[in-house]
Amino acid sequence: MARTVDPNRVAERREAIVRAAGVLFAEHGYEGTTAAQIARAAGLSSASVFYYFADKAAVFRAIFESSIPEHAEMLARHRDREDCAAAIVDIAETLAAEVLDPSAPGLMVELLRRMDHDPALTEIVLEDARRSAEVIAELLRRGMADGQFEPGFAPERFARWILAIVDAAFLNCDPADPQDPRPLVRATICRLLCPLGMEAR
Amino acid sequence: MARTVDPNRVAERREAIVRAAGVLFAEHGYEGTTAAQIARAAGLSSASVFYYFADKAAVFRAIFESSIPEHAEMLARHRDREDCAAAIVDIAETLAAEVLDPSAPGLMVELLRRMDHDPALTEIVLEDARRSAEVIAELLRRGMADGQFEPGFAPERFARWILAIVDAAFLNCDPADPQDPRPLVRATICRLLCPLGMEAR
Repeated sequence: MARTVDPNRVAERREAIVRAAGVLFAEHGYEGTTAAQIARAAGLSSASVFYYFADKAAVFRAIFESSIPEHAEMLARHRDREDCAAAIVDIAETLAAEVLDPSAPGLMVELLRRMDHDPALTEIVLEDARRSAEVIAELLRRGMADGQFEPGFAPERFARWILAIVDAAFLNCDPADPQDPRPLVRATICRLLCPLGMEAR
Repeated sequence: MARTVDPNRVAERREAIVRAAGVLFAEHGYEGTTAAQIARAAGLSSASVFYYFADKAAVFRAIFESSIPEHAEMLARHRDREDCAAAIVDIAETLAAEVLDPSAPGLMVELLRRMDHDPALTEIVLEDARRSAEVIAELLRRGMADGQFEPGFAPERFARWILAIVDAAFLNCDPADPQDPRPLVRATICRLLCPLGMEAR
């Protein structure tokens, strides 16, 4: 009888590897982490990482690949809302909430380091940012057409700037003194979009 | 007769080396740039970099060291201004203007990469950021005490956030399509500090 592969079990183990790898890469860096350490942290045998992933670079990419469907689902939830400013602020706040993951600041630095060495990784990250920027630009265009706000900048450029403000929350995070970045991100983007005094509506 | 060293000429040559190195590091990365290439680009003989600097890491640090006195002078010009919001916005805009240097985005990525390997570099960059944050926090405290604005966040935290927004302008820069980041930085920080409609005063 042929040996069968349980797809659920494959997905579970891949996920366990990606989760363990995120913590190790953030703490010890990409170069300072071995596949054997990742396997051990995921509760698997030493060489098993290479059963589930082609190489260590693929494990690193999977950390960022795994957020694409989550982000797509989140963007879909906000893109048709009537209050465009509130939708944009909520998208930015949801993305900024990822800073609360203790591995996030370390992974951000490793990501910038790895992007030069791995064009496939760059592609994944740019594609993820492009999708978020597209939905935000669409909300900006609709909100401007409806007279909800007048940011005074072209929607595409302004959408990228809103994502840059979210990136600022990652850069600003001090792992020794972690703070919830959401109130500052919310206040910043809200005031860019809404006349003061309308925030509480 | 002992050979004398002309201090002006030493300073000029160090500056030429630092300027040439900034362009090369941004384009080819720290690892991808040799001291001989730096010397050649500065119009000096191949080994002369090591006459002026202990090693390649010291050349890289000098790029960031050289902005400390410039920043100190700029901060001193703004710290006692009466209109605290305008002073903070002008400081942020001046720092963001450095994005206009075509080497800036490449150097920012190399900086994040090098910081782990060179504690002296980290010290320089943190000290530079600490001084800017201190002056901005002082202006925030004074502006809040005078009733000029009420940002709703602690001055120290808010000052670091303003600097993170400036950093976002560096990350957001697309070398293939460079844009002046100052209008977006100005609008963002202005609206965080001033009720809308007061920007034009």
